Amino acid sequence: MIQEVDMYTIGIDLGGTNIAAAIVNEKGEMIIKASVPTSVESGYEVIVKDMADLCLSLLKQVNIDISDIHSVGIGSPGNVNSETGVIIYSCNLNFEDVYIIDEFHKHIDIPVHIGNDANVAAFGEYEVGIGKAYKDFIAITLGTGVGSGVILNGKIIGGTWNGGAEIGHTVIQVDGVPCPCGRKGCWEQYSSATGLIRQAKDAARENLTSLLNKLMKDNEGIMTAKIPFDAAQSGDEVAQKVIDKYIDYLAIGLGNVVNIFQPESIAIGGGVSAQKDNLILPLRERMIKEVYGGKESFLTKIEVAQLGNDAGIIGAAMLYKLQTNVS
Amino acid sequence: MIQEVDMYTIGIDLGGTNIAAAIVNEKGEMIIKASVPTSVESGYEVIVKDMADLCLSLLKQVNIDISDIHSVGIGSPGNVNSETGVIIYSCNLNFEDVYIIDEFHKHIDIPVHIGNDANVAAFGEYEVGIGKAYKDFIAITLGTGVGSGVILNGKIIGGTWNGGAEIGHTVIQVDGVPCPCGRKGCWEQYSSATGLIRQAKDAARENLTSLLNKLMKDNEGIMTAKIPFDAAQSGDEVAQKVIDKYIDYLAIGLGNVVNIFQPESIAIGGGVSAQKDNLILPLRERMIKEVYGGKESFLTKIEVAQLGNDAGIIGAAMLYKLQTNVS
Repeated sequence: MIQEVDMYTIGIDLGGTNIAAAIVNEKGEMIIKASVPTSVESGYEVIVKDMADLCLSLLKQVNIDISDIHSVGIGSPGNVNSETGVIIYSCNLNFEDVYIIDEFHKHIDIPVHIGNDANVAAFGEYEVGIGKAYKDFIAITLGTGVGSGVILNGKIIGGTWNGGAEIGHTVIQVDGVPCPCGRKGCWEQYSSATGLIRQAKDAARENLTSLLNKLMKDNEGIMTAKIPFDAAQSGDEVAQKVIDKYIDYLAIGLGNVVNIFQPESIAIGGGVSAQKDNLILPLRERMIKEVYGGKESFLTKIEVAQLGNDAGIIGAAMLYKLQTNVS
Repeated sequence: MIQEVDMYTIGIDLGGTNIAAAIVNEKGEMIIKASVPTSVESGYEVIVKDMADLCLSLLKQVNIDISDIHSVGIGSPGNVNSETGVIIYSCNLNFEDVYIIDEFHKHIDIPVHIGNDANVAAFGEYEVGIGKAYKDFIAITLGTGVGSGVILNGKIIGGTWNGGAEIGHTVIQVDGVPCPCGRKGCWEQYSSATGLIRQAKDAARENLTSLLNKLMKDNEGIMTAKIPFDAAQSGDEVAQKVIDKYIDYLAIGLGNVVNIFQPESIAIGGGVSAQKDNLILPLRERMIKEVYGGKESFLTKIEVAQLGNDAGIIGAAMLYKLQTNVS
């Protein structure tokens, strides 16, 4: 009798605040997950040691030997060279030209793969989540910014020098809202959760008797991305206008994405995607006007991402499947 | 002694006005070129017969036998499926679901490859022109519209249903100038030769004493894309403002392209590119503000395309080099 041996990998989501890691099986299911704070002030050597220690601690907890681990994958913010294993630059981590794979090998000798966090999260959805059904797939994350990961025929499209796929930093409004990146009118200024909150806050302040304003007040004066959706569903016209305008901007940016890539599917993730059909249904309808060739050419599916915050860890664990990404 | 035999292919640029074709050698050099009008009103069977007859006539003129021809390539406007050999839709040709390779085989039995004309022209530059030095390359054509072809690692990025790479139809100005595609504020409304002419004409009419206005009058009242450049070089401030604004728009659109693809090179073709350094030098300078990560991350070259109007024919002749594109 032949006993099947499970293969495991470890995925690490290296963030500016926390290092999250999980042991993941071949199906992309997490066996165990944990996180530790990122000691940004201590420098890369301490951070990488913390990453390795976290891996070893997870293994110990579930009684899996390191020899049963096929590989480790790391998703990192910033500009990452997957081929050389170098984090070229990350302002969140205060990294410049960090040979992270070499550093990791000082602690654990196992194949390591790295990638940019937004790309890796998209790859997670592609391998395990909503993107599984597709060859050409794009993940758009509506959070603090607008993140994006483009996967065509199984390959991450990241730019010659690993600085591409910054779709959030494409201008949709010449001379528009200034963006910290230095441009004016970047899509992310209008379509991120942050952008929605700004637009909702402005509308609430201009309409003191609106439900939108009341719900903000009830929330200790803090606007959220959820409040305008809630107020609009309760019939508040001011909130409905905010949502309509937000969906306009989102449809325009996604229309640009479709006209460039015409992927099989675009998955929407991040905080705003919690609205599910309240967001997706009017968005799809509004996008018809933005797609080249109109309704008949609008073949790209617009869907909600499936893996939530785990997409980064799971995508990192799956990086070994990216052939060009092996070290 | 072994005699080397030259290998030839035939490239066909199937346009709404003319069918242009050339016999091309392995280096991408045209041996002979000719064109005939496109009988759009006669339907696809006549058009394809005219294409085949043109090929046979070219062969006869230079005394090359059909057996010395490796393959034929066709660049067609519209939505083209390279794998099935079908022109799905082209309003210029009045084609819908035309099995053009099968039809061509009724006249000449030889491998035939097809592609969308903008993509094929980009592929011509990639194989034979300015793009030869690069793996990741984008061609942008500033003519009646803004055409684009994206080539990553030798593959044309054309969208799942062959309707992608319409970068000219990405919105850079929400609620901007209406575009015939149905959107408002498409990049092509601002950065095509047509867009430049519109902006220059408006400025000339508002500034009756400007050199810009005088040069338009001297040209029988017809504005061209060259006139504002000429007037600006002669010190006309009105024309200089038009050029500065045009370069702003162009830099913003190209900044979007760089932030998405970060290719090694973007080649600018079409009528406006005749301005060479008058266009490229200020454009590169202006783009620094538009590229994610600023000057240090601006590694993409901005160059003038080399093949001019022949890019389409040469690219078509070279299509056999696209592995996914064989029939």
